[in-house]
Amino acid sequence: MLPAGAAAAGAGLVAGVSGWIFRHGGTIVHADQHHDASAGAFFQRVEWGTASDDPMAEAAAFREYAEKDLGMVVRVAEAARRPRVAILVSQHAHACHELLLDWRQGELAADVVALISNHRTMEEAARHHGVPFHFLPVDPTRKHEVEERQLALLRERQVDLVVLARYMQILSADFLGRVGCPVINIHHSFLPAFAGARPYHQAHTRGVKLIGATAHYVTPVLDDGPIIHQEVRRVSHRDTVSDLLRKGRSLEKLALSEAVRLHLEHRVLVYENKTVVFD
Amino acid sequence: MLPAGAAAAGAGLVAGVSGWIFRHGGTIVHADQHHDASAGAFFQRVEWGTASDDPMAEAAAFREYAEKDLGMVVRVAEAARRPRVAILVSQHAHACHELLLDWRQGELAADVVALISNHRTMEEAARHHGVPFHFLPVDPTRKHEVEERQLALLRERQVDLVVLARYMQILSADFLGRVGCPVINIHHSFLPAFAGARPYHQAHTRGVKLIGATAHYVTPVLDDGPIIHQEVRRVSHRDTVSDLLRKGRSLEKLALSEAVRLHLEHRVLVYENKTVVFD
Amino acid sequence: MLPAGAAAAGAGLVAGVSGWIFRHGGTIVHADQHHDASAGAFFQRVEWGTASDDPMAEAAAFREYAEKDLGMVVRVAEAARRPRVAILVSQHAHACHELLLDWRQGELAADVVALISNHRTMEEAARHHGVPFHFLPVDPTRKHEVEERQLALLRERQVDLVVLARYMQILSADFLGRVGCPVINIHHSFLPAFAGARPYHQAHTRGVKLIGATAHYVTPVLDDGPIIHQEVRRVSHRDTVSDLLRKGRSLEKLALSEAVRLHLEHRVLVYENKTVVFD
Amino acid sequence: MLPAGAAAAGAGLVAGVSGWIFRHGGTIVHADQHHDASAGAFFQRVEWGTASDDPMAEAAAFREYAEKDLGMVVRVAEAARRPRVAILVSQHAHACHELLLDWRQGELAADVVALISNHRTMEEAARHHGVPFHFLPVDPTRKHEVEERQLALLRERQVDLVVLARYMQILSADFLGRVGCPVINIHHSFLPAFAGARPYHQAHTRGVKLIGATAHYVTPVLDDGPIIHQEVRRVSHRDTVSDLLRKGRSLEKLALSEAVRLHLEHRVLVYENKTVVFD
Repeated sequence: MLPAGAAAAGAGLVAGVSGWIFRHGGTIVHADQHHDASAGAFFQRVEWGTASDDPMAEAAAFREYAEKDLGMVVRVAEAARRPRVAILVSQHAHACHELLLDWRQGELAADVVALISNHRTMEEAARHHGVPFHFLPVDPTRKHEVEERQLALLRERQVDLVVLARYMQILSADFLGRVGCPVINIHHSFLPAFAGARPYHQAHTRGVKLIGATAHYVTPVLDDGPIIHQEVRRVSHRDTVSDLLRKGRSLEKLALSEAVRLHLEHRVLVYENKTVVFD
Repeated sequence: MLPAGAAAAGAGLVAGVSGWIFRHGGTIVHADQHHDASAGAFFQRVEWGTASDDPMAEAAAFREYAEKDLGMVVRVAEAARRPRVAILVSQHAHACHELLLDWRQGELAADVVALISNHRTMEEAARHHGVPFHFLPVDPTRKHEVEERQLALLRERQVDLVVLARYMQILSADFLGRVGCPVINIHHSFLPAFAGARPYHQAHTRGVKLIGATAHYVTPVLDDGPIIHQEVRRVSHRDTVSDLLRKGRSLEKLALSEAVRLHLEHRVLVYENKTVVFD
Repeated sequence: MLPAGAAAAGAGLVAGVSGWIFRHGGTIVHADQHHDASAGAFFQRVEWGTASDDPMAEAAAFREYAEKDLGMVVRVAEAARRPRVAILVSQHAHACHELLLDWRQGELAADVVALISNHRTMEEAARHHGVPFHFLPVDPTRKHEVEERQLALLRERQVDLVVLARYMQILSADFLGRVGCPVINIHHSFLPAFAGARPYHQAHTRGVKLIGATAHYVTPVLDDGPIIHQEVRRVSHRDTVSDLLRKGRSLEKLALSEAVRLHLEHRVLVYENKTVVFD
Repeated sequence: MLPAGAAAAGAGLVAGVSGWIFRHGGTIVHADQHHDASAGAFFQRVEWGTASDDPMAEAAAFREYAEKDLGMVVRVAEAARRPRVAILVSQHAHACHELLLDWRQGELAADVVALISNHRTMEEAARHHGVPFHFLPVDPTRKHEVEERQLALLRERQVDLVVLARYMQILSADFLGRVGCPVINIHHSFLPAFAGARPYHQAHTRGVKLIGATAHYVTPVLDDGPIIHQEVRRVSHRDTVSDLLRKGRSLEKLALSEAVRLHLEHRVLVYENKTVVFD
């Protein structure tokens, strides 16, 4: 990401980056760029195969070149290193099951290293899938204490991504400030409509003809973080609240699973509370 | 429509209505019903062919039976009578063009009898389609006066439905109270998200991954009336505001055109600020 | 279902059915009808609550009335009786997992009583979910023998519905003639496009911009049975065959799960190799 | 486009192209690339602003560099030059109206220079929009003669793109071989399902639950050319053939309009009977 002035520099940046890779014998597997004229920002994602024996050294060399010579903000990830994921879930288990099955299916380029819940619903399934399960019940008086234990656990397990798969507790700003990795949430509505509690009830009362689900990064403002992916589905007057809940579950599974996959493949860049998704 | 108690009465109502039609030699073309258990309301739409020479007399007889014997709230429409429609439009002409073309195509069971605008954009097209065009420019100081002229015009043309095809003036509660027929509006967002002005700019700022359009009945509360139909479409970070405007136009055309068709075929019932759409 | 002549009889049938229920003190929970003018057939689905202590006796009385007095073809199911389902699956497990999770979630009004596979992929999951697993490997020389064992198993388990959740063997016409209950299959394409083997490869070669999945009843003609439900999703030139396989899996899960739910709620009627789906 | 070996060359090509633009003071507005590993082909689209007074000279210089030094197949278009479009239409006018309105709305970066039809349906609308209308009735005995006159007309009007907006005559291989520009057709089904005549009737008979429309380049094999864009919409057993026709019209309008816009913005590359669409 670059501040104003980046627009005109687009050709130079692309030339610089691709030229560097070319000179080092690399093979570009995927490359995409985005220029946001109104924000004056230029974004690029390049996925390349390296000729080097030491990819981390090459990554460091590239980072130095791109930061110093091109003035870019750089993030380099090694595809071979699998990010470590923790899932937080409450009693609604469908989105968590979906992630675990995706993972077992080989669709998530990651290791699921912890399943943390304030309910025991997923305990048996976690065991079945070989994922350590941590039961941390929450009550209003000890929310801070539970967050401390969660933070300790995430640190200990060296987690790169936290996924809230229908985790029904609001994480404090303090937790978010200290967690040290992105947190992805699934909200069971088509944000920004129906933020907050019981969105399907809200949708039913309003009489909408489509319902949605939104996967987004968590920020301290509730249901307001950068949106990664949304899914939507037609409903009618025949759908009761419980029909909306059922239809919504399939949307939540789809939207969260897609967002987590995109994030783990390093396809999502965040700026100005929005995302660039290089899919 | 029936107050509480209707639930248990469903079988009796269906039996009563269909029995009456059967005894009068009618043929049911389409029948649908809806029971909203939480609202305690039962709705039914029956479209039947009559054996009578005098459909209006039969309609009156049916109404009397259904109101008196069954305690229903009844609305009867004669399919052969084409409702009279007025379209209000400002400078964004696409949704208005779509309605006129639908109408010419024979897809709207109605007569378009007036096109009222505060701009001259649609004047030539109105003439081309043979629809009387009324140029009524609006400025803040004479809004009330313009509404009076609009009301006089709608009355004079005996209008059964007013369609706001991107009419960019807010109609007063006084106008809505006196217009004497339903008013359908197209809002260029996926309500209830982005009510009010410049919804595509709002959507762009929020970084949503889907945009929508909503056709609804107009009530005195802005963008809050009963929703008839919604359309939605995927967008990405690549879409500028002007891309959203372009993609949105196709959604607005689709949603308004569908909602107007459903209304004109008497398929929409309103209750509790929601709609039952018997499609 | 009725032969020609049913059209005009619609009102009488609706009146007859609803009147009978009304006279017996029943409460209509859901009612829908469909008149196919070109086929000259009238269809009705009525779901009612009975005042009787003996629902099966009432069902028999209703059947007699509707068949004799109204000349209808009747199927009555007791909602309280849960159909018994067997799932056949090969090595692609996603659609089978989805069904099992739907079932555990309480979304399928049925009992899953057998999981039959020519692979061991689902064995552990079956045990986890408490479903009897039957490993019946298939090879070309003993296909007939395996089908005999499958038929014996289905009979013994008193199965009401067989679901092929990506079962990669073609069932013989003999099997289908003797199975004695409906068989639902998920085909991994938007039928009738890409029937037969390797549909995603076919779709990739053809360069389509949307892929689909189709849940249908199985008939002796491959991939030609009555379609219950279809799902579709946008793809692009960037999608490799393996991307199509991945995206397709989510479609297959959705389409099969929805079709099975609709069938189990007795919402699907078949005629002329098509379905009426009363949703 | 490059033959096998292009894969490894990706980085060099991107570096070469962007470096050339950078050295000539250009500003990249949009750049996208695609590497089809199975076809061994690499594609790139670059849209750049030039610092030169003579864009055509710069285009020629770039072409020489990219062809000689990089071994690429090159197509350069000047954005300021508006392609010239002819529309062929029969009696179904909706898709043609949509294109004309898009064009008047400023959404098509092109000039519509001729409207050719074997019916007079669009004559008045063509006059209204200021497009020369050519009435060329077709009958089986003089099909060849009509095609000669069409070819002469297209040549004379210097047409860059022919759009078949529901033109119900099959163009001969001879015509296609001599027309000298791309031809885009809208087929009223979700290809490859229901190629050929009366696709909505075919869809109704088959009982599909979704219908579609496909915009594609025309090749001598009927309904088999490279697909540019497809749209799809849910239908049910309630939809008669005439409902499918009506719903289909909205799909045809959407799909053709989008495909033509993409083509006119030079976003579509063809290879192996497929398209790369850089949107």
